[in-house]
Amino acid sequence: VKTPVVGWDIGGANVKAARLDGKGVAPVVVERPFEVWREPGRLADVLAEIAQRLGPARSAGITMTAELADCFADRRSGVLAVLDAVEQALPDVSLRIFGTDGRFHPLPAARRNPERSASANWLAAARRLAYERSSALLVDTGSTTTDIVPIARGEVVARGRTDLERLRTGELVYTGALRTPACAAVRRVALAEGWCPVAAEHFAIAADANLWLGRIGPESYTCRTPDGRGTGRAETGARLARMVCAEADTLGDAGITRIAREIVGAQRRQIAAALRQVVRSLGALAPRRAVVAGSGERLAAEAARAAGLRPERLAELWGEDAARAAPAAAVAWLIAELHA
Amino acid sequence: VKTPVVGWDIGGANVKAARLDGKGVAPVVVERPFEVWREPGRLADVLAEIAQRLGPARSAGITMTAELADCFADRRSGVLAVLDAVEQALPDVSLRIFGTDGRFHPLPAARRNPERSASANWLAAARRLAYERSSALLVDTGSTTTDIVPIARGEVVARGRTDLERLRTGELVYTGALRTPACAAVRRVALAEGWCPVAAEHFAIAADANLWLGRIGPESYTCRTPDGRGTGRAETGARLARMVCAEADTLGDAGITRIAREIVGAQRRQIAAALRQVVRSLGALAPRRAVVAGSGERLAAEAARAAGLRPERLAELWGEDAARAAPAAAVAWLIAELHA
Repeated sequence: VKTPVVGWDIGGANVKAARLDGKGVAPVVVERPFEVWREPGRLADVLAEIAQRLGPARSAGITMTAELADCFADRRSGVLAVLDAVEQALPDVSLRIFGTDGRFHPLPAARRNPERSASANWLAAARRLAYERSSALLVDTGSTTTDIVPIARGEVVARGRTDLERLRTGELVYTGALRTPACAAVRRVALAEGWCPVAAEHFAIAADANLWLGRIGPESYTCRTPDGRGTGRAETGARLARMVCAEADTLGDAGITRIAREIVGAQRRQIAAALRQVVRSLGALAPRRAVVAGSGERLAAEAARAAGLRPERLAELWGEDAARAAPAAAVAWLIAELHA
Repeated sequence: VKTPVVGWDIGGANVKAARLDGKGVAPVVVERPFEVWREPGRLADVLAEIAQRLGPARSAGITMTAELADCFADRRSGVLAVLDAVEQALPDVSLRIFGTDGRFHPLPAARRNPERSASANWLAAARRLAYERSSALLVDTGSTTTDIVPIARGEVVARGRTDLERLRTGELVYTGALRTPACAAVRRVALAEGWCPVAAEHFAIAADANLWLGRIGPESYTCRTPDGRGTGRAETGARLARMVCAEADTLGDAGITRIAREIVGAQRRQIAAALRQVVRSLGALAPRRAVVAGSGERLAAEAARAAGLRPERLAELWGEDAARAAPAAAVAWLIAELHA
């Protein structure tokens, strides 16, 4: 393995890359929102553009979750399409694909076994964290999903490998700090007048709730708004009010705040319930500590506390940038250490 | 009022129009799927095209729900935009807008009070049904929503007027037979291995569940598929499987059927719960009969039975076409009878 090395985490809605110039230094991180299902044909260009921003690299480690995007007929063809885009975007770079078996594979081997390359990013981050924490739950809340990965006795002890298994075990929670449709997070909201069911319509997302409550600033609203409008207070309030088929005026700021709190609270409870499920399944091995990461780190920490775990910020261990793009940074470090 | 008269029900995802040549005859109905939020500027063209298919008319009655679409900053501007489109598309036609006060208003009056013209279509249908049934719940399940409108002693006795009030009272249930996102209908599904949470992602809709189960044919899948693919069995199965981040192969037909049943069952329970809520609120006036209508009539009838009501098909009273587009037909009849 030659440095500089770049670790890639190619998601369906965000691409993250971490460039490492030498062993043990903090990586330079680039995050780029890109909805692969809208323009799958542009993925290679987006990767090339990020590579250019990061500067030349000799080696690259790849993880992905973009293969789940519904522009691909199935995961197999999704993985192959991502691998094609990587190869096209990164010529002259030595490529290694991180698999759900916890190993790196050269491109031809990855192509022969596409399933192995699907959604292994959580494992890379946890593997690397296990160097530093021998007993912890990694809780990585991103824009769309939350990964909960148990580490015990210095090993990753996750029960699920595929996304389906991970959903069932609570290790993958399909809720995140930005893209989650509000109508998937809550069924009804408590208004001043009492409970009101919400419209089953893509009117508002978690980012609207977080922005309205001041939990994020407009610069962190990196995904599209559901209605294509801006992220000003009036526009955000209108999206949240529309969830109950109402105007912002009718509800008032207090009513909109109730809706926003309901969304964030439901997500917190959902992650906390999954944390308890994972803890229960570990029995005596259950960690007491949750290492929280990702752009939704705050939500992860709140859920950890609600589940009786002690949150620790991955940013304290890895630095802010690497903690927000934990799988990308982890893949870069893991690959740099391959022959260290 | 001059015949021929056309009744219009201008929704956010479907436009329905019913043309009546004389009093007491069955109307000719045109339904046209059109997602107004994608191309609000084309609404007038779509209306004009439908008007042309129906043939010349002297008078028109208008109801709408399209004003809720999030291409409009608020309902007020939504109503005004729809009225503009109507005026542009139907020159030389005498226009009357049906209001939430149960009356028809000329265009200038409707423009002065836009709120009154918002989402009054349910009231038109129930008003007309009250001619024939003095005690009944109208249960109209469309592609997106279900209207539950109580009629007692020959009068419409709904408690809500605005959509917000109607959501709260159970009179508007935001679930329908086609467009409802599966992730808004169910939180988890029972697979052979046990419960599995679903992805909070627009991977599948109610139409996929109904098509997979043979409850509708492909010709009734009149909205877009979430992934833009076709409505073949493999494509539909792939969408449903993706809800648990899985492949159709992995789940098998039986697993996909479980997911589809879970979606339809959840919608049935949701409508039944709202029916019970409406019945409870009526006390001694509560009807025993549910008159079911709309493209999701079957779901409405199942929910009615689950709530202990006796379903009767509106199609038996009004004919198949008029029952599927009940508000449009009702507005046509009501306007034709204005000076009868």
